[in-house]
Amino acid sequence: MSERIAVVGVGRMGANMARRLAESGYSVTAVFDSRPAVAAELARELGCQSPDTLAGVTAVADIVLTVVSDDRAMDQIFSKKKGDSLLSGAKSRIFINCATVSPAIHNEVQKRARKAGAESLEACMASSITQARNGTLYLMVGGDRKVFERVEPVLKALSDGGKLLRYIGPTGTAAQVKALVNMVMNINTAGLAEGLGLGAALGLDLKALMEVFSQTGANSRVLVTDGEDMVNREHSCFFSAAHAAKDSGIALALARKARLKTPLAAAAYGQYRRMVSAGLGELDKSGVAELTFKGRGAKARRRKASRR
Amino acid sequence: MSERIAVVGVGRMGANMARRLAESGYSVTAVFDSRPAVAAELARELGCQSPDTLAGVTAVADIVLTVVSDDRAMDQIFSKKKGDSLLSGAKSRIFINCATVSPAIHNEVQKRARKAGAESLEACMASSITQARNGTLYLMVGGDRKVFERVEPVLKALSDGGKLLRYIGPTGTAAQVKALVNMVMNINTAGLAEGLGLGAALGLDLKALMEVFSQTGANSRVLVTDGEDMVNREHSCFFSAAHAAKDSGIALALARKARLKTPLAAAAYGQYRRMVSAGLGELDKSGVAELTFKGRGAKARRRKASRR
Repeated sequence: MSERIAVVGVGRMGANMARRLAESGYSVTAVFDSRPAVAAELARELGCQSPDTLAGVTAVADIVLTVVSDDRAMDQIFSKKKGDSLLSGAKSRIFINCATVSPAIHNEVQKRARKAGAESLEACMASSITQARNGTLYLMVGGDRKVFERVEPVLKALSDGGKLLRYIGPTGTAAQVKALVNMVMNINTAGLAEGLGLGAALGLDLKALMEVFSQTGANSRVLVTDGEDMVNREHSCFFSAAHAAKDSGIALALARKARLKTPLAAAAYGQYRRMVSAGLGELDKSGVAELTFKGRGAKARRRKASRR
Repeated sequence: MSERIAVVGVGRMGANMARRLAESGYSVTAVFDSRPAVAAELARELGCQSPDTLAGVTAVADIVLTVVSDDRAMDQIFSKKKGDSLLSGAKSRIFINCATVSPAIHNEVQKRARKAGAESLEACMASSITQARNGTLYLMVGGDRKVFERVEPVLKALSDGGKLLRYIGPTGTAAQVKALVNMVMNINTAGLAEGLGLGAALGLDLKALMEVFSQTGANSRVLVTDGEDMVNREHSCFFSAAHAAKDSGIALALARKARLKTPLAAAAYGQYRRMVSAGLGELDKSGVAELTFKGRGAKARRRKASRR
């Protein structure tokens, strides 16, 4: 537990991971965010630093967890150009990259890290904010197995003592698995929204309909997590529609490259893109029901606007 | 148990339901099929009649279960024209229609039955051949509640003592629910096939991938029932791709009528139609993976042809 740990990107996920590690007895030395005030507040809470620069983060940490929004953000924080970068003075550091980004950027970051004398791993998360806080994240790790073993205790603290920790394979493979998980989840979610929306249009009792779904071949994890929320229009964000669009997009790019036709994945991507275009991208993924229940969607937009 | 029961349409489902009812102590007096030899063989097994005509079935039964292939078959067996029909001499009979057909034909048959002094119910099944044999069918019933109550003991014998029996609502509603169940199931199945097919194309360990799916938002009933079969190309038919196409088609027609956009349902329908066009319609619904794994499909067709 002597390693010094920093977290870069402390939105709700990253902040909860930092809290969990601090609680587990790890020395969290620094947090960083593109919004300095957010990092400063968390630093006060945890009694750690919030350096002004990425290089300042690397200077005070042995292990740096990153939880940033997309490939572009990964490219920036691991910049190889002159200017601020996590790679400045990064010799013997280990970077653990937890955001859902493309397999390609994981490979690129791994290359850059090695050039700087550091190592990098991908630790893709298939869970959400509550699980981050409780240290019960499902974690899929890609990268060098020996590097994985060196940071295994830290990852165990985040994944129910390791019960939910899976080493997948070389760099890029965990991100591939994660993209497939979210691709299938998004298909099931968008499909469920159609089933419930059509049930509503037919005037069926949706509670009874969901009970039938749960007992039959229509059952799924998202029925349990999102079914009621779809009916009740409770779309507080755990996993945003914008993220769903991004992740399905990553999977579709892999499919295109493999010359594979994936019409269901394309249809789900289309729905989540439609949500983003309609200004509903910050709703939870369950919000896709706003597109499939009659008389919703436009109304939801108006309500959202009036709340601002 | 004094009611005389007949079963019309004794493919594997109908035959197993007849066997189960006979075993449960009911008097199965007649079976009928458009293939007379099939009916005659089952009649020998059960020690009952296999009348030459539909009117002959109605003559010896109080309750007639029908398990036929589609709307057209329903229209024929309940013909209101001159010629052979279940409705000849049908006064006070109760027809229980178990096939997955459109809500519209259930309504039409109900109308015709009442005109003939009879009653009809829909008892839509969300299970398969094994469950029919064991009397553990998930049954969704639509129609007049009083008529439902009169035949409830018979339906209980087919649905684990009634544990899996659900009264849904007026005629047509059970068929609507059934169409929605299969629509969502087909989406989840076709989506899973894409996830596994893309995983295979990326060279991932599919056993590990399925384990991850099962622990995450990608989990679903069809992952349990169809995942391994997709990987192993084990597509022995429990629920055929042709049926999947038909049922998704029924749901899409309901969506069109409700002016609802259902792109996932449309994509799943497209995949199952593609299977039918490619001569793969008699494979199990898991066979949709033949369209999403590289190098399959055409090969499967050739292998199938060489087995004939």
